[in-house]
Amino acid sequence: MLVVMEKGTSEEKIQAAINAIKKRGYTARPIPGGDRVSIGILHNKGSVDATHFLGLGGVKEVIPVTKPYKLVSREFKQKNTHIKVGDAVFGNGSFPVIAGPCAVESETQVLSIAKSVKNAGAKLFRGGAFKPRTSPYSFQGLGKIGLVFLAKVREETGLPIVTEVMDVENFNLVEEYTDIIQIGTRNMQNFSLLRCAGKSDRPVILKRGMSATLQEWLMAAEYIMEEGNNNVILCERGIRTFVRHSRNTLDLSVVAAAKKESHLPIIIDPSHAAGVRDQVISLACASAALGADGVMIEVHNNPEEAMSDGAQSLYPDQFVKVMEKMNAIHAIVRK
Amino acid sequence: MLVVMEKGTSEEKIQAAINAIKKRGYTARPIPGGDRVSIGILHNKGSVDATHFLGLGGVKEVIPVTKPYKLVSREFKQKNTHIKVGDAVFGNGSFPVIAGPCAVESETQVLSIAKSVKNAGAKLFRGGAFKPRTSPYSFQGLGKIGLVFLAKVREETGLPIVTEVMDVENFNLVEEYTDIIQIGTRNMQNFSLLRCAGKSDRPVILKRGMSATLQEWLMAAEYIMEEGNNNVILCERGIRTFVRHSRNTLDLSVVAAAKKESHLPIIIDPSHAAGVRDQVISLACASAALGADGVMIEVHNNPEEAMSDGAQSLYPDQFVKVMEKMNAIHAIVRK
Amino acid sequence: MLVVMEKGTSEEKIQAAINAIKKRGYTARPIPGGDRVSIGILHNKGSVDATHFLGLGGVKEVIPVTKPYKLVSREFKQKNTHIKVGDAVFGNGSFPVIAGPCAVESETQVLSIAKSVKNAGAKLFRGGAFKPRTSPYSFQGLGKIGLVFLAKVREETGLPIVTEVMDVENFNLVEEYTDIIQIGTRNMQNFSLLRCAGKSDRPVILKRGMSATLQEWLMAAEYIMEEGNNNVILCERGIRTFVRHSRNTLDLSVVAAAKKESHLPIIIDPSHAAGVRDQVISLACASAALGADGVMIEVHNNPEEAMSDGAQSLYPDQFVKVMEKMNAIHAIVRK
Amino acid sequence: MLVVMEKGTSEEKIQAAINAIKKRGYTARPIPGGDRVSIGILHNKGSVDATHFLGLGGVKEVIPVTKPYKLVSREFKQKNTHIKVGDAVFGNGSFPVIAGPCAVESETQVLSIAKSVKNAGAKLFRGGAFKPRTSPYSFQGLGKIGLVFLAKVREETGLPIVTEVMDVENFNLVEEYTDIIQIGTRNMQNFSLLRCAGKSDRPVILKRGMSATLQEWLMAAEYIMEEGNNNVILCERGIRTFVRHSRNTLDLSVVAAAKKESHLPIIIDPSHAAGVRDQVISLACASAALGADGVMIEVHNNPEEAMSDGAQSLYPDQFVKVMEKMNAIHAIVRK
Repeated sequence: MLVVMEKGTSEEKIQAAINAIKKRGYTARPIPGGDRVSIGILHNKGSVDATHFLGLGGVKEVIPVTKPYKLVSREFKQKNTHIKVGDAVFGNGSFPVIAGPCAVESETQVLSIAKSVKNAGAKLFRGGAFKPRTSPYSFQGLGKIGLVFLAKVREETGLPIVTEVMDVENFNLVEEYTDIIQIGTRNMQNFSLLRCAGKSDRPVILKRGMSATLQEWLMAAEYIMEEGNNNVILCERGIRTFVRHSRNTLDLSVVAAAKKESHLPIIIDPSHAAGVRDQVISLACASAALGADGVMIEVHNNPEEAMSDGAQSLYPDQFVKVMEKMNAIHAIVRK
Repeated sequence: MLVVMEKGTSEEKIQAAINAIKKRGYTARPIPGGDRVSIGILHNKGSVDATHFLGLGGVKEVIPVTKPYKLVSREFKQKNTHIKVGDAVFGNGSFPVIAGPCAVESETQVLSIAKSVKNAGAKLFRGGAFKPRTSPYSFQGLGKIGLVFLAKVREETGLPIVTEVMDVENFNLVEEYTDIIQIGTRNMQNFSLLRCAGKSDRPVILKRGMSATLQEWLMAAEYIMEEGNNNVILCERGIRTFVRHSRNTLDLSVVAAAKKESHLPIIIDPSHAAGVRDQVISLACASAALGADGVMIEVHNNPEEAMSDGAQSLYPDQFVKVMEKMNAIHAIVRK
Repeated sequence: MLVVMEKGTSEEKIQAAINAIKKRGYTARPIPGGDRVSIGILHNKGSVDATHFLGLGGVKEVIPVTKPYKLVSREFKQKNTHIKVGDAVFGNGSFPVIAGPCAVESETQVLSIAKSVKNAGAKLFRGGAFKPRTSPYSFQGLGKIGLVFLAKVREETGLPIVTEVMDVENFNLVEEYTDIIQIGTRNMQNFSLLRCAGKSDRPVILKRGMSATLQEWLMAAEYIMEEGNNNVILCERGIRTFVRHSRNTLDLSVVAAAKKESHLPIIIDPSHAAGVRDQVISLACASAALGADGVMIEVHNNPEEAMSDGAQSLYPDQFVKVMEKMNAIHAIVRK
Repeated sequence: MLVVMEKGTSEEKIQAAINAIKKRGYTARPIPGGDRVSIGILHNKGSVDATHFLGLGGVKEVIPVTKPYKLVSREFKQKNTHIKVGDAVFGNGSFPVIAGPCAVESETQVLSIAKSVKNAGAKLFRGGAFKPRTSPYSFQGLGKIGLVFLAKVREETGLPIVTEVMDVENFNLVEEYTDIIQIGTRNMQNFSLLRCAGKSDRPVILKRGMSATLQEWLMAAEYIMEEGNNNVILCERGIRTFVRHSRNTLDLSVVAAAKKESHLPIIIDPSHAAGVRDQVISLACASAALGADGVMIEVHNNPEEAMSDGAQSLYPDQFVKVMEKMNAIHAIVRK
């Protein structure tokens, strides 16, 4: 951390800042520049809280240098983490696809969709039994019976299941039925839930919060890893911006940035970012071109009558075509 | 809701859209314009899910007209909701001030600060016992013992207590000690926690999510009210923008907008928005000028050694001056 | 346009709003819903200014339905516009690549880069002679002599030239030397410059403003087309968001959205969005996968000593590899 | 500037980075930390372009320390700049108010509004003769005749005039008629126009770009000052965010931040930020409370029939009341 002093600050203030740094247990090294003095904070274990020094007299700015994360960091572990679930591996250069409807609506529905996405090459099945909805009056998911239907899908198709857990209360229940635990956008900083997921032996898909920086996202993963669960898959699903032509703005540059900072695999959910079908197709192809570790796509056998998010769900035959394109693109990029 | 068809769409597609609307149980009224046909969805109870119709053939756009909230809406209840806690009333045109440190650090600390803010005119005391921290390695709060210290503050000063609850697990514990339950930014869409707060008889301060629209925020309040708790105080604390000179951007226009849409009181937290002390003072005065229903301000007796957010905490003597200014400004604006 | 009245508004206010609409020369049609009255504004030629009605008594909201653009609109012209420059065609399903350095630095530099990008398959050469720089103290470009060097590139390699014009003063000068006129991000709403470009017979690359909505961007293109120049190529180059791991956030969903709204070709500049080389490569591949009408990429023969934006410029051998990948991906997507 | 090397980077790469720094003419000082080496760039005159070093091998991050602005900086000139125009002074602790319609529509209109705002205490008159409009089909202002009407206002009321200049072509014309030159949001980085304004002897109101950081805004002012014009008044008018309940989000924390960085006066335009009248009133009061150096407010004698932005214009009697409140609030804050 670099504590930058104002131009012409008095010696007393500089000394006071140095003392404050030492009082917190750190080493302080003054670096006189041409115009001003900066003080480096050295030999700190882990990152330093900038707010401790920002308000001191004569301090102009406090600039973090060390990143606050440890276990998620590529400096901590250089090799990519590989997470194997069923036939799929996330992080080894392959491109597994997770597909299924937004919400589990009925046994027939999930079985029908699961068979068609499996035929098209999907490696895992997704579907929400507990749905986080902006409105208390919207369909909230089937709950436990939805999980039972998902288990039926696994039984009949062999596809591992990805489903969301919304709270600590239902954690054990969801964990029992699912192969990968999904933590949604709105819960990215639900620290109690993160800790709970950190104690599980199931891999976790951690969706990026709607306005989370890469650093905050990695820190959320750190909460999970710090409890002992190393199998975290990051999932970019679009951020909130001023843009109105799509529901969210898919931040594709985060893939390269996350891979630079962290060893964790990162996948993309183009469906929630787009909000409309025609954007999903092109964003899915872009995701394959980008070097992501997989995608998660919503598919529905009857989007017109879907109970939620019909407009962004692909028709099964669209999914077949997207799979072909994504696989061909992935083969080119992987070379 | 208005379903706008593309220019020159065929009669069949228009009829199909009308049928899809009717199938969902709504009344459809086509409105031929000069260029294109739009279809009004009428006599719907509550709002309509736009995604149901967005993906239909020939549909260009779906425009919501009715707002999705009910109980929080000023159309539902015209008069301002007044929420009385101790000597303070939120929503009746007065300007109660909540003050205290970011985190409870010790009994001495909270008692010392509480006495000074009470003398300066604060009506409630705030302090965090459970702290949501971006990093698992940061100070997470004192937990239960922090709540005990807060109870001591109430006992000795008579000030009602505001403290944050982070999860359902600790809800009953926090509820037992606090007078107002605070739900933080990161939990604004933790729907399980909102429902839990809806069953409590304590008033709730609901902080706005970092990138929540007014509508999403009011829908979160709707979750609480729908469970039976009508005493929700909205709290603006800054939104995430591209700006780097402050931690968040305080969205002051939301006060007038929220008061137009809803009968709920709305207060402002300038401390978290600013992140640095000098901005807090001017934003607090602006909050008073704006017609907000109160403010929540961080004050620390020894910010240099605060365990969190020292840089944004006011010194007690600064707080005295801000109180004077805010009260004088409020008197002018209230006229 | 839909003028939504407040619930329970008086008949007088509704009538007054109807009269205000008529006074402006439009047809007003009241649409009684269950809860409230809305008034449709019909048979308007072109779009209606919402601010005319937003402040009227009893008006809750004004919702635009018709889009304000005409000439750029796909409703106005259904077929894709094809723009041919040299061997390249923008908008016909091909994927022309524009490459070159950020700034023209010397004749040797541009000739060297031009030859290598031509060999790799680039169809046009880019390079800035007039550089818009945030700081008056940064290198502002070589000016006219830079244009002369660019002309030399065309002469020696046959590649058409793309270079930026910054103001009306230098318009004729730049126009004389370039094949495509580029209007930069900061000038997207420099209406005098847009009108000037509209009178030129050169195609125009119109970069998206840093925080421009799709509608504002298309309206800027409308300014050019309204003056008679139909050859406008839209160029997405990243928008400003809260994100800090890349200079800007490339908004890839805008490609599908722009193609839905407009017949104009749209290309992508991944270099300025990323700001760092490793992100440029993956975003360029994603651009090809997305169905964009081309890309513009910065390449430098000696990025370490580049006078501007060295960090985001590809090395020539990286460019060769990206070209191969982009072409292979484009072939898949085009099918 | 601090060049942060990756953990475990080789000695060769560190030396290469040091050499690259020296080659650009700077002093390089390596600062070994616990985990990694950083290299300080010292004794640079002016700021250093980060992109020069960001792409070098082994470089993880480049962190600017020195700010790139000089003349606008408070480190360069400690005392507030005072700008006197007519009876008004910007920057001396007073609170001058600029008022008038969005657009000049007729001589009668401007004279009528000017008299009423003067009576209410406004010190300057604003009105647009050249209007930057998103659509080429919207009213573009009266042009020169509008300037003549503004001159008439000055003649009859004695109020100095503020009006916008949109391009270099009309600069001399506008300059001839106006007392303060306004440069609008969309032109904040129209560097040719900034340079032109820098050669004028008229004070300049420089509106903040819609997504400009404080640093970019100050650099735009630096362009003006660098040409010799020291009389620059910054004007915050709202930034673009995800928010939809107001046209823009007024960034009030920028006032304290700008005053810390710069000696230039800063005023606020609440009208354009809000877009609707009821928000304007409360934001104007907040601006007075904040310690801004003035405000600019839109007032119209007949907003229902205004040719632009009627919804955000105050009625003359509303303006009277806002003036009273703002003055009273300013008196409190100034103490």
